[in-house]
Amino acid sequence: MNTADLGLPVDVPSTALFTDQYELTMLQAALKAGTAERRSVFEVFTRRLPEGRRYGVVAGTGRVLDAVENFRFDAGVLGFLRERQIVDEATLDWLAGYRFTGDVWGYPEGEVYFPGSPIMRVEGSFAECVLLETVILSILNHDSAIAAAASRMSSAAGSRPLIEMGARRTHELSAVAAARAAYVGGFTTTSDLAAGFRYGIPTVGTSAHAFTLLHDTERDAFRAQVDALGRGTTLLVDTYDVAEAVRTAVEVAGPELGAVRIDSGDLLLVAHPGRQQLDELGATDTKIVVTSDLDEYAIASLAAAPGDADGVGTQLVTGSGHPTAAMVYKLVARAESDDPRAPLVPVAKKSSGGKTSIGGRKWAARRLDEDGVAEAEVVGTGPVPAELAGRQLQVELVKDGEVLAREPLDVVRDRHIAARAGLPLSAIQLSRGEPVLPTEYVQVPSGN
Amino acid sequence: MNTADLGLPVDVPSTALFTDQYELTMLQAALKAGTAERRSVFEVFTRRLPEGRRYGVVAGTGRVLDAVENFRFDAGVLGFLRERQIVDEATLDWLAGYRFTGDVWGYPEGEVYFPGSPIMRVEGSFAECVLLETVILSILNHDSAIAAAASRMSSAAGSRPLIEMGARRTHELSAVAAARAAYVGGFTTTSDLAAGFRYGIPTVGTSAHAFTLLHDTERDAFRAQVDALGRGTTLLVDTYDVAEAVRTAVEVAGPELGAVRIDSGDLLLVAHPGRQQLDELGATDTKIVVTSDLDEYAIASLAAAPGDADGVGTQLVTGSGHPTAAMVYKLVARAESDDPRAPLVPVAKKSSGGKTSIGGRKWAARRLDEDGVAEAEVVGTGPVPAELAGRQLQVELVKDGEVLAREPLDVVRDRHIAARAGLPLSAIQLSRGEPVLPTEYVQVPSGN
Repeated sequence: MNTADLGLPVDVPSTALFTDQYELTMLQAALKAGTAERRSVFEVFTRRLPEGRRYGVVAGTGRVLDAVENFRFDAGVLGFLRERQIVDEATLDWLAGYRFTGDVWGYPEGEVYFPGSPIMRVEGSFAECVLLETVILSILNHDSAIAAAASRMSSAAGSRPLIEMGARRTHELSAVAAARAAYVGGFTTTSDLAAGFRYGIPTVGTSAHAFTLLHDTERDAFRAQVDALGRGTTLLVDTYDVAEAVRTAVEVAGPELGAVRIDSGDLLLVAHPGRQQLDELGATDTKIVVTSDLDEYAIASLAAAPGDADGVGTQLVTGSGHPTAAMVYKLVARAESDDPRAPLVPVAKKSSGGKTSIGGRKWAARRLDEDGVAEAEVVGTGPVPAELAGRQLQVELVKDGEVLAREPLDVVRDRHIAARAGLPLSAIQLSRGEPVLPTEYVQVPSGN
Repeated sequence: MNTADLGLPVDVPSTALFTDQYELTMLQAALKAGTAERRSVFEVFTRRLPEGRRYGVVAGTGRVLDAVENFRFDAGVLGFLRERQIVDEATLDWLAGYRFTGDVWGYPEGEVYFPGSPIMRVEGSFAECVLLETVILSILNHDSAIAAAASRMSSAAGSRPLIEMGARRTHELSAVAAARAAYVGGFTTTSDLAAGFRYGIPTVGTSAHAFTLLHDTERDAFRAQVDALGRGTTLLVDTYDVAEAVRTAVEVAGPELGAVRIDSGDLLLVAHPGRQQLDELGATDTKIVVTSDLDEYAIASLAAAPGDADGVGTQLVTGSGHPTAAMVYKLVARAESDDPRAPLVPVAKKSSGGKTSIGGRKWAARRLDEDGVAEAEVVGTGPVPAELAGRQLQVELVKDGEVLAREPLDVVRDRHIAARAGLPLSAIQLSRGEPVLPTEYVQVPSGN
């Protein structure tokens, strides 16, 4: 695939260097030892959700597919690796021809997950799979953390639209991915133009305090904005005095004024008189947008306020206290020997440090109760029990190195809303608690 | 500047879309109102440090210079803005010729800062300056947050080298910037190859648990690694049993073994017997690297342990609890009228929401006590008091649109170490407290 087709505001000629050095040194050692071609199964999962969270949200899958497809070592990259003596010539030769030829299965993007859910599975030779660890984890850990916060916020907001406006609070490219993840989690729009350009997410935005301050009076500023952007625009009313600004705004734009935005102060205290004032001025259709440092709790508290849309910045792009998911990428099975036909054997780390995991290639299914509500995340090795066969979660994403399908973000977003709706009601409680579904393991010792 | 010269693993043809939509709609309204060309002064500052932190660290300045230089609207970007009807044709025409022609002053990168420090100042027409808000804040807020965490960690580590290895816990491009910011804050190396490629930061890494699990025995894995990477390599010894692994490691590599790495368990409890065992086996020069979920407190607690290097991941790239700085970009002065020769007048938001700021173009100086230790951050408008003239903090970064100088990262890192050393000793206490310097304002009402 030509990366130019991705319409990136930032062209990614290769994702190969978004990689920890040890992936390449392991490759070199395995090539030399003759073990590099052993068929291997790596799984992405998390041992725990962030403290108090009830569910996780898979996000970034689409970006992972792009990253896998564009994971190539061109002359510039190879020259760097050679010059810095990071790997030897035999390894460089191998890397020059690198192209992932294996298979990827995973939870579809937007799906919810729990501790132990096998969110993604990468199968192929050890060599081709191990290299992808860092970039896959970067994407899934970042995007899923943002989507999880977004999902809590969007369920707290109910029918009120949410505007993502956190670009200035995070790395400029994280911001683009964050806007995407926020949309997956139920946000409506973004302020970030690059996210609109790259992912087609609807963008919004009208003006800041600087615009008011640029002009000699607030009235001048409002008039300039309405002249340029029309009466349907959103006027920012908290540069000086909110009540006076609301009056001026309706005088300038008339009752057709689209919205007023309040960016500071106690929003509950300001929104009520703002609504009353707008109504008294006849601007009954003029909306109120509030935007000051909101998190999911503030959004929930605003449910009773007369706001029509909430803008969320810092807390969204920082995952509302949990800026990263704790996903890991672990070898869970590999060929018993160097023989290409050797069967797979499960493997797992066994030290006493608490970082143990369960070996073997896993399936996952969500069991429903008699009312059709999810009651358990069931993860197993070996055959899938017949009663769960129709409830399996993993889908094929890449086959023999070919990406099978890319999905429109709206499909992903709808999937997330549906998956969340299928959980027990306590999933959308904001209070801290345990994961809303238990993870049950069905282990068949010999099955792989 | 040709962006290819930046040696980016990710080519950034333009940074123009790392921008909130309202910057462009404000531009359109100002162009129509005839106020777009009013000379304006924007300042970047923060109202507070993250709770309990003693100082901030300016990081990202070099990336800001790149972003300003590459802020251009090409045909693809203009086509997007047209198709989505984000701005009108007159604005598109103006954007097509965009090139920043103003001036930027700022704290040099690596310098420390406090609440109210005018970290960066952007001067030019309103139109050309307002567009840069989002991308400048994205970079400074992200990079400074990471550098501040890195600085605390590096002062806690003392002479022990710190390895940045958090790429998998953050967005793949944040990771590159985070490795850069970590280096500025005193880290020694990174695992992230893209950071080595892009910024020349030394990279390290040898192997993961997957490599041990790939092989039939731990001994096979160690032998394969030593065969490929030499006896000076670092062997990971906590896949199964640490004591047994250390014994095997020295048997395989001999006393010339470079290091052993421990990635789980209670590091203090494991490092001591590990050191003793290595010494008994004659591997007295073999180092111990510990890497499990460290933060600055864990690093400080390891000061008493026999570790020789610490690897830090999650807590570094997430800013150790503070993943973003709270910097804002505010219009502080603008031409009194549309007359090109009009004098500047200070401006500031004045609403009751607590988000007030001080108008006017500011200078900053760090006052020293009689022992040469910093005692106050002095910020003012108007003339600089004679006794502070030699202690001014801001330097010229861009003049008439031309970037004046780029600095090697080592220079920036050395500056940071020196700036931190110039603060009162309590700066490097890890415990929560107030900013170690008070910010004093010297306001001359008429001075601009």
